[in-house]
Amino acid sequence: MKDSAQLDNIKILAFDVFGTVVDWHGSILTEVKQLQLDIDANAFTLAWRAGYAPAMQRVMSGELGWTRIDDLHRMILDDLLEQFSITSLSEDQKYELNRIWHRLDPWPDSVSGLTKLKSKYTICTLSNGNMGLLADMAKKAGLPWDCILSAELFRKYKPDPATYLGVAEVFDVRPEQVMLVAAHQSDLEAARRCGLATAYIERAFEFGKNQIKDVSPSSDNSLHAKDLVELASILNI
Amino acid sequence: MKDSAQLDNIKILAFDVFGTVVDWHGSILTEVKQLQLDIDANAFTLAWRAGYAPAMQRVMSGELGWTRIDDLHRMILDDLLEQFSITSLSEDQKYELNRIWHRLDPWPDSVSGLTKLKSKYTICTLSNGNMGLLADMAKKAGLPWDCILSAELFRKYKPDPATYLGVAEVFDVRPEQVMLVAAHQSDLEAARRCGLATAYIERAFEFGKNQIKDVSPSSDNSLHAKDLVELASILNI
Repeated sequence: MKDSAQLDNIKILAFDVFGTVVDWHGSILTEVKQLQLDIDANAFTLAWRAGYAPAMQRVMSGELGWTRIDDLHRMILDDLLEQFSITSLSEDQKYELNRIWHRLDPWPDSVSGLTKLKSKYTICTLSNGNMGLLADMAKKAGLPWDCILSAELFRKYKPDPATYLGVAEVFDVRPEQVMLVAAHQSDLEAARRCGLATAYIERAFEFGKNQIKDVSPSSDNSLHAKDLVELASILNI
Repeated sequence: MKDSAQLDNIKILAFDVFGTVVDWHGSILTEVKQLQLDIDANAFTLAWRAGYAPAMQRVMSGELGWTRIDDLHRMILDDLLEQFSITSLSEDQKYELNRIWHRLDPWPDSVSGLTKLKSKYTICTLSNGNMGLLADMAKKAGLPWDCILSAELFRKYKPDPATYLGVAEVFDVRPEQVMLVAAHQSDLEAARRCGLATAYIERAFEFGKNQIKDVSPSSDNSLHAKDLVELASILNI
């Protein structure tokens, strides 16, 4: 944990979104079950998310040109429909299913936690999700962002340093005045290498109740909190 | 004016900001007067704003690489300090003066008008101002944007078509489902050429009370309103 003098310099809180602020697993599982497709909805949900990193890697390696997450999600979905032998969906239904990522539900503490944090800091997203996805999600879920920042602005995906340093540049502050808030140690580690402060948020049920995540603290992070309300409390709000 | 069927399709309201949502002239005039610089504060204010279009033109022509408005404002300011023979300001004071564009006051109707409009539409900025400037301004003034979009995202300044069409792309809608709301006919005209609907907002005092602007309606626009509260009323909110 860093000392409080370093925390006093923080001006901007930048949030990872999928898993940290919204419950992608629970939201998708519920909607997929409602489709009554006679598949293992949990396996389908986990596979959709698991396709995300390799799909972004194709963009980061240069194999694909700049491609928004909406389009990557659709490419993964099309593969999954084949793998799970789902043939009953119309094009409109596939489009709507893919838009599920725009309407993910927040964790129960997210709106109240962000509202508190906003009273003291500028709060923004730093997500690989595209601007439109994040804006739709915020409007539906009532997430009170001061500003939506996305990989789409930087044309690089996290963990590229351009994304973390980009937040500092957007707000014309030093990297150590930005704190990344995320439920993923790898994201926080990459941010730390760029000089950002880091706050880890436990989301033990990110992958559902059958696959509990290890949420042990790492002393490398500036802060560790159970959820966003606790983070506000640690930051004396 | 377009017929109501066309207006029924509108999903996104994209707002010009300087002059349309915030009163740059009044805000800057007040702060410049407070500096007690023994200059014509009104002339200084108008000259700062007048430097904006030629500065952007240097970026659009390729003479300058991509440059944020913050930096263009500073280049213009440095020229003006020389022209107005102002030598008393420290570097910190110049930096703070340039940040004035981040803390412009909204017109009296802006917050209430936007809040109403947000209940029915997704409301975003489409400004040449940079993301950080627009986020700081929104936080200070309480502008309830769903999303801040800027020329910075598209790396093109208005009136480049990439900016207007960019809004439709961000939200994955057709251009005619976006309405640009602006106090400048040239901005609206460029948006219209891209297929956007347009709403003109009268801001007769944009340049101050000594230089009343012609706010005559143009039949080319979809809508014409005195201010943002009236726009909400016209849109049945």
